[in-house]
Amino acid sequence: MPDPVTGLPVVGMIGGGQLSRMTHQAAIALGLSLRVLADAPTDGAALVTPDVEVGAADDPAAVAAFAKSCDVVTFDHEHVPQDVIRELVSAGATVYPGADALRYAQDKRAMRQKLSELGIAVPRWSNDPDGLPRPYVAKAVRGGYDGRGVWFIGPGDELPDTDLIFEERVAIVHELAIQVARTPSGKVRCWPVVETVQKAGICVEVVAPAPRLSTSLAAQAEEIATTIATELGVVGVLAVELFEAPNGLLVNELAMRPHNSGHWSIEGSTTSQFEQHVRAVLDWPLGDTRPRARSTVMVNLLGGPHTDLANSLPAAMAESPTASIHLYGKGARPGRKLGHVTTLGDDLVETRDRARRAVAVLRGED
Amino acid sequence: MPDPVTGLPVVGMIGGGQLSRMTHQAAIALGLSLRVLADAPTDGAALVTPDVEVGAADDPAAVAAFAKSCDVVTFDHEHVPQDVIRELVSAGATVYPGADALRYAQDKRAMRQKLSELGIAVPRWSNDPDGLPRPYVAKAVRGGYDGRGVWFIGPGDELPDTDLIFEERVAIVHELAIQVARTPSGKVRCWPVVETVQKAGICVEVVAPAPRLSTSLAAQAEEIATTIATELGVVGVLAVELFEAPNGLLVNELAMRPHNSGHWSIEGSTTSQFEQHVRAVLDWPLGDTRPRARSTVMVNLLGGPHTDLANSLPAAMAESPTASIHLYGKGARPGRKLGHVTTLGDDLVETRDRARRAVAVLRGED
Repeated sequence: MPDPVTGLPVVGMIGGGQLSRMTHQAAIALGLSLRVLADAPTDGAALVTPDVEVGAADDPAAVAAFAKSCDVVTFDHEHVPQDVIRELVSAGATVYPGADALRYAQDKRAMRQKLSELGIAVPRWSNDPDGLPRPYVAKAVRGGYDGRGVWFIGPGDELPDTDLIFEERVAIVHELAIQVARTPSGKVRCWPVVETVQKAGICVEVVAPAPRLSTSLAAQAEEIATTIATELGVVGVLAVELFEAPNGLLVNELAMRPHNSGHWSIEGSTTSQFEQHVRAVLDWPLGDTRPRARSTVMVNLLGGPHTDLANSLPAAMAESPTASIHLYGKGARPGRKLGHVTTLGDDLVETRDRARRAVAVLRGED
Repeated sequence: MPDPVTGLPVVGMIGGGQLSRMTHQAAIALGLSLRVLADAPTDGAALVTPDVEVGAADDPAAVAAFAKSCDVVTFDHEHVPQDVIRELVSAGATVYPGADALRYAQDKRAMRQKLSELGIAVPRWSNDPDGLPRPYVAKAVRGGYDGRGVWFIGPGDELPDTDLIFEERVAIVHELAIQVARTPSGKVRCWPVVETVQKAGICVEVVAPAPRLSTSLAAQAEEIATTIATELGVVGVLAVELFEAPNGLLVNELAMRPHNSGHWSIEGSTTSQFEQHVRAVLDWPLGDTRPRARSTVMVNLLGGPHTDLANSLPAAMAESPTASIHLYGKGARPGRKLGHVTTLGDDLVETRDRARRAVAVLRGED
């Protein structure tokens, strides 16, 4: 069911958030227009795309109806249930990443087990609340993100009442992430490893390439990402979040979609993660992923108590004329991810400063 | 009438072609969604934007109805009649560029006269068919573009039956263009001068910055563009097409909108002409316009006899993994502008080669 005007395939994305929004932006360049299944007509992607269905990602009928006019279906989040995906595929839809791969992004226990089987280092973990000495980290097996579903558990603390795994508290030297894209025919391409800065479990800043990483650890991260993408049969973009620990790299999380740690690639790399995701799920050749500058810095815009974008957007443009500003079409609320800012440059400190200043003004900080 | 979800202003663009399409892409990053008045629902921009009205750009009722829900109205072409624009403004709409400025992009006689008054060099010209020695160039006063409306007139040739001006045939050393953006409050910012390559009156290739231009001529081109933008009261992006003649620079054409000679800026500059146009018509601060690479090359994709994008797009990606491909959502037809390809690099010859190879494959050339 290619597009009748252009003859090009129709890519459908389940979820109407900023990842769909930015994927649509990238798709336009390739002659496409993303088809979106949004929760609401006011979702960020629904505001900017013409081909929108409104429906819940876990409603089998809505998802099936949506998929009918797509050549391939993909996701902007991990919340589509396994049985919904499997039903779609038996009905003839092409869905990437597939249910078997996506399971490892939906279920932290399955992910930890699988990576351990593959010989990939992960934090020491257990299914048994008494299997590790406290303090440790308890993680919800399903549904956690952006700091939700993660608890630091001290000696006397009660455990939250949900399905949990338990992990050692890693002595983190740096937090890292690496993006990789894989096609159904098995072609794989990594972007450079990035360093991420987290506050309260939420990514606030990304520097690409990771400025304080040895060449050998960078190569090891690429190998880990390539192995995971290949062995798990991922199709599309895979983000691997890593801890650099004193003894080496440990895999923390997986996301099988464009990811916040890859937003820098829109300006910072020859091919953005959004375009690459589209290429990958269509089994088209992958684009070059080299960085365009010595340093690229991405700073997230989280709503503050005084954020008012209609006023602060032009002020931020005045403050930082080199900042590439990305807003997600959301009303401002404290703590909400409203957008991000990217800067490129030769000098990391100066480049980061330009991005941070733009974000501070956008937030309405004094 | 700002957008109810985001509180941000609504920019309307008259015309649904590739310039609107790429302006929408840029607007998404700024939290906006372009409102488009398209000729047909299959226009390139109409395929990718949700807020589309279908109507003719010269239909006063359609344009007025469209403008009602826009904070500012702008154009992707010069074909909106003067009286339609003036009516809009008297009804309270904000329209940029304004009718007074736009007149000089619509009427070559008025443009030649005005530039001559400003002391800006233009080719020697006349309103009188006998005012210059033949051979000369006859140009339609209105409506010409992409080589249409231009005739080379030899000694015995008949003149076309339309309102004409007559110009000397300039001994062209190089063809150049410069883009400049101006805000209503008078802020002006130029991109670097580019060299353009024309075939049969159609731009086929752009190199940014112009590789064979002296520093003094580059500075002179910036001065010319700034003077024209300011003295004509242009708001938005202005493209000035120039001839480098043996005696210096001559202004050939003006366009008051994003322009083919500025497409390189999407990847090649910190701020693209599309984002800058949006910033300018909203009277927001202008973005930095420095180039991101030593050389940026843009090659237009014109339909060939065997162009079949559904097949050739992945082939072009395989051929040129560093090429940024832009397709306009059009069905292929020989001679039709279907898209463009941009590459960045340190070495001009190698950079140009990557873009040309991608375009050759996209066209389906052997």
